[in-house]
Amino acid sequence: MNRDVQHGSSTRLDQYVDRYAARTRGMTASEIRALFSVASRPEVVSLAGGMPNISGLPLDVVGDALGDLVQEQGTVAMQYGSGQGVPELREQICSVMALEGIEAHPDDVVVTVGSQQAVDLVTRIFCDPGDVVICEAPSYVGALGVFRAYECDIVHAEMDADGLVPEALRQAIMATKAAGKTIKFLYTIPNYHNPAGVSMSPERRPEILEICREADILVLEDNPYGLLGFDREPYRALRADESEGVIYLGSFSKTFAPGFRVGWALAPHAVREKLVLAQESATLCPPQFSQMAVSAYLSRHDWQGQIKQFREMYRERRDAMVEALSDLMPAACQWNVPDGGFYVWLTLPPGIDAKLMLPRAVTARVAYVPGTAFFADGFGSSSMRLSYCYPDPDRIREGVRRLAGVLEAEMELRETFGAVTDPTGGRGLPARSDYESPSTDLT
Amino acid sequence: MNRDVQHGSSTRLDQYVDRYAARTRGMTASEIRALFSVASRPEVVSLAGGMPNISGLPLDVVGDALGDLVQEQGTVAMQYGSGQGVPELREQICSVMALEGIEAHPDDVVVTVGSQQAVDLVTRIFCDPGDVVICEAPSYVGALGVFRAYECDIVHAEMDADGLVPEALRQAIMATKAAGKTIKFLYTIPNYHNPAGVSMSPERRPEILEICREADILVLEDNPYGLLGFDREPYRALRADESEGVIYLGSFSKTFAPGFRVGWALAPHAVREKLVLAQESATLCPPQFSQMAVSAYLSRHDWQGQIKQFREMYRERRDAMVEALSDLMPAACQWNVPDGGFYVWLTLPPGIDAKLMLPRAVTARVAYVPGTAFFADGFGSSSMRLSYCYPDPDRIREGVRRLAGVLEAEMELRETFGAVTDPTGGRGLPARSDYESPSTDLT
Repeated sequence: MNRDVQHGSSTRLDQYVDRYAARTRGMTASEIRALFSVASRPEVVSLAGGMPNISGLPLDVVGDALGDLVQEQGTVAMQYGSGQGVPELREQICSVMALEGIEAHPDDVVVTVGSQQAVDLVTRIFCDPGDVVICEAPSYVGALGVFRAYECDIVHAEMDADGLVPEALRQAIMATKAAGKTIKFLYTIPNYHNPAGVSMSPERRPEILEICREADILVLEDNPYGLLGFDREPYRALRADESEGVIYLGSFSKTFAPGFRVGWALAPHAVREKLVLAQESATLCPPQFSQMAVSAYLSRHDWQGQIKQFREMYRERRDAMVEALSDLMPAACQWNVPDGGFYVWLTLPPGIDAKLMLPRAVTARVAYVPGTAFFADGFGSSSMRLSYCYPDPDRIREGVRRLAGVLEAEMELRETFGAVTDPTGGRGLPARSDYESPSTDLT
Repeated sequence: MNRDVQHGSSTRLDQYVDRYAARTRGMTASEIRALFSVASRPEVVSLAGGMPNISGLPLDVVGDALGDLVQEQGTVAMQYGSGQGVPELREQICSVMALEGIEAHPDDVVVTVGSQQAVDLVTRIFCDPGDVVICEAPSYVGALGVFRAYECDIVHAEMDADGLVPEALRQAIMATKAAGKTIKFLYTIPNYHNPAGVSMSPERRPEILEICREADILVLEDNPYGLLGFDREPYRALRADESEGVIYLGSFSKTFAPGFRVGWALAPHAVREKLVLAQESATLCPPQFSQMAVSAYLSRHDWQGQIKQFREMYRERRDAMVEALSDLMPAACQWNVPDGGFYVWLTLPPGIDAKLMLPRAVTARVAYVPGTAFFADGFGSSSMRLSYCYPDPDRIREGVRRLAGVLEAEMELRETFGAVTDPTGGRGLPARSDYESPSTDLT
């Protein structure tokens, strides 16, 4: 009865194909995923990933804190905990959110397995198949994946340099309602947007809230990067000015470390009860050890000083990237200069397709994420997300140099032969079933 | 705009009530949940919870291992990882499963946030609303909650002292198919069943597999307690004799510690790919630090010797419980003597309702889980689950003594007044919105 399977063979028929739930149609591997198992090779400069650079963390402090945690509270830290999360950590989370003007009670915080799980749980409790989620254009690929997995319809609304455009939001709401569809929430990343790199201006925030209030739709405010601004105090959160209509999501993945998978949702009280039930159904409880580890770190270390160091490190990398782009990229390219976070959004000269160009870029040992990954509707082919968070400044410059070379060759080809064709017939590199590379290449 | 909410008020109207997804109707707080925030007080002997007793773990070994992990591999352990899980841990998981006769490739293992999340992800990829899951009668309350949250129909099949009854399974399948419904899988806990305390006999296992094979339904084999048998070598897993038709779920929560939330699914190759996509959508990746912590523990400690110690400790507690039951409970009660795991299933004399009796038991400072929690169909009212895993033998005896007293009073009342009535009018204790107590009271 032992089976006879060739591991790694992706051509094998899936005998279960008729049994999967309808929602699995929304859970497909990205076309470009295969490429990233190549892009994770050390010789490739990856401007694709969203991994924070945590090399500056004080390993001695964290090591001592965790050793003490085991010795002193091991049987609590290694035991099951509450589905809502460790009370002391939820209090600390309220202190973190206070930096963005949020007054919250720890009772209304639900700890999640990274803020990715918070997106999942919020969607789980609100969205039936066919419900609409309004997302910025572009939007975070991991959230789009969740909305698809719950069979939601995604409607995009435009952004500009000041973030989500109020008039675009109004029109998206009107058009969706006119089509007889139910909008469950607006999903927005107001600060240092992934992937667009822009922030919602303070002037626009009350208007966005007012539009959602009038249309009676919730706001899902996803804010992993809010404390990573380079040149200013943290933006005031949308949640700071609207407590009933906003579900706020936060994370320690970028301000401390992602490996503990500790994020949270702050929700209106009634919604919080549903989120706890959903969390218990999903995992019984989030990892107690992770939560107490984060709590110990926050208690014992100058975490705000650490975030300041992170900000300076990322600002230096941002500078390296935008300088290299200015020095090296063809004049017809456009990009923004982010004032925080991890990402630059770059638009290519007319006629160049970022996804079609990717295999050539990887061959030239540089990787990025094509813009189409951040749209539910096929847009974004002439754009790409470049991240400066993980490689050091020299590698960033080298990556941009390689990218500029690929792009110039592409532009020459196009001038010589007209429209660029894909040597692999649209499939990109051959499919691989290699899941060893970090899943965050696409996040 | 700041709201004016009284925390802890459960009478407040939920203004979001019209917006929730249909699936939230399956995500309701247990009626008896409120009771457990009372039952978690130290003066109450809880025979309700499923928390393992981890006081025997070598905290010095674990503390050193985690300190070293941070010092030596901190920037890996605290970073994002693969959605499928840490490769080295997946190899170790295969060694663990080999103890139950399973030959598996690490490529087919997906690490999950406890095996609870594995139940969630498997249900997510297979079950549309209205699909049927066949469950033993009784079955694990946490799994029933997942199936309800995905709007599945649950069909129970009887067990006896040798576990799931093949003829009952056949009849459940026939009746379900005759009703035109689609069965997605059989959910079974073959070893040291939660809550029933029995194991599927080795003689029955091939027959159960054959029935499912013929009916073309998958088997979801949930096995958290398989290595915790008292008097014998581990049972051979169903998965050991059928690799394509079985998805096997395992956990380190009972053999090491639950606070890291590390479980896994072993699935046929095609299914594993879907599970990884579902995991990435749910959490991006399971906690890297937790996984490397478990891996370090397995590498550096005599984990099999530790499990032997756990087995001896739980056997002593099982003995304490069954001796106390024999000594103290009224003759009309029935219970089984488990040969492993955490639970005794006790059936009360005719006419006594375990759920109605629970408030009186808690008043008498003893708690249990009424049998109805383990059925989707209202059965089980005359039964209860008693767990011996967490309290020490003296507390177990004291808990049984209190329980016997409550039961005797209940039987007297019934003889005097006829049918027992519920002084709270069916609501149990007043509802509370206290989520501080461990969510595992019900698991």
